[in-house]
Amino acid sequence: MEQRLGELEVRTPGPGLSEITGEVAAWLRDAGAANGLLTLFIRHTSASLTIQENADPSVLLDLNDAFARLAPENAGYRHDTEGPDDMPAHIKAALTSTSLAIPVIHGKPALGTWQGVYVWEHRARPHVRRIALHFHGDTA
Amino acid sequence: MEQRLGELEVRTPGPGLSEITGEVAAWLRDAGAANGLLTLFIRHTSASLTIQENADPSVLLDLNDAFARLAPENAGYRHDTEGPDDMPAHIKAALTSTSLAIPVIHGKPALGTWQGVYVWEHRARPHVRRIALHFHGDTA
Amino acid sequence: MEQRLGELEVRTPGPGLSEITGEVAAWLRDAGAANGLLTLFIRHTSASLTIQENADPSVLLDLNDAFARLAPENAGYRHDTEGPDDMPAHIKAALTSTSLAIPVIHGKPALGTWQGVYVWEHRARPHVRRIALHFHGDTA
Repeated sequence: MEQRLGELEVRTPGPGLSEITGEVAAWLRDAGAANGLLTLFIRHTSASLTIQENADPSVLLDLNDAFARLAPENAGYRHDTEGPDDMPAHIKAALTSTSLAIPVIHGKPALGTWQGVYVWEHRARPHVRRIALHFHGDTA
Repeated sequence: MEQRLGELEVRTPGPGLSEITGEVAAWLRDAGAANGLLTLFIRHTSASLTIQENADPSVLLDLNDAFARLAPENAGYRHDTEGPDDMPAHIKAALTSTSLAIPVIHGKPALGTWQGVYVWEHRARPHVRRIALHFHGDTA
Repeated sequence: MEQRLGELEVRTPGPGLSEITGEVAAWLRDAGAANGLLTLFIRHTSASLTIQENADPSVLLDLNDAFARLAPENAGYRHDTEGPDDMPAHIKAALTSTSLAIPVIHGKPALGTWQGVYVWEHRARPHVRRIALHFHGDTA
């Protein structure tokens, strides 16, 4: 059993889900991962990680709209100096995930057929988001 | 330190929470787990994992109703070809968890007195759901 | 690679977020952690874990208010014998996290600049909450 630590940098184009399944798979390959466990951790409080359907892109748009309804702007927040999208972004981050753990089999994340790994940007403007990666298990 | 990989298959009867605490404990026993960490990962985007109270079954019904209010059907979704329960299922999955990590002590998951591990089916019809399991730590 | 198991006890003052970043960092230090992965697991179903902004305390108050709107009291719950705050607490726990995984680099959790680790109390009264900790990786 060995471990590998790393980091991904993701440039988000603004609110919505950006798929990083390919980058994650490439990192595992470069790390020589065989069987084990991959952990992703996003180092921000106004963006988050989620695993969702990667077949129909309209799912991602519907998800974004649904969360805009759950965490609306201008709901009388105390924390509003960074703009109307700031506090909703924190609420959406709390409603989703900061960390994800995915078993790795034969070097590949054990995702289901329709699963993709996404960074979910909750702020209105583009950002650079950093994701810490950790793998431990067998290496080739 | 060693690791074990495995999979559980769960047949859900339709929307709601199905307890799998017993199956998870049995898998740890069969794996010879002593002290370590257990990770569960559900390989679907319209069902999820949660840890909830296992004492009063009405908690599970109330949870299901509460999530039906948070992610209602017929809310003008773009993605509706698979039926009115499809997009709400993705939203409920995003609001809960795809992966769970539970410390294992003396071969048992370190759950609190009232905690049970559940698969939460978000689709209207029964499904077979697959959960990848990973344990690493000491084995007996 | 080695592992360490431990537990934190946190006294919450009632509803809201209590920061435990310092306690978590101290536990890693005492465990001799170098590089690896830290997992936190809260052993309760009416309190949860979250990672949120630790700069402006009004974020924490806004988060609490937002979740009170998402999981209101007196919404016709079946499960109400423990008081009107009980079922909303379970819903809020389901909407947030029971477990968190954080990579550890040079003995410190790899948190972003503005991230703190919090116990989120969802019941109206103060409670003692127990959090199981697991570290595995290199030790100094």
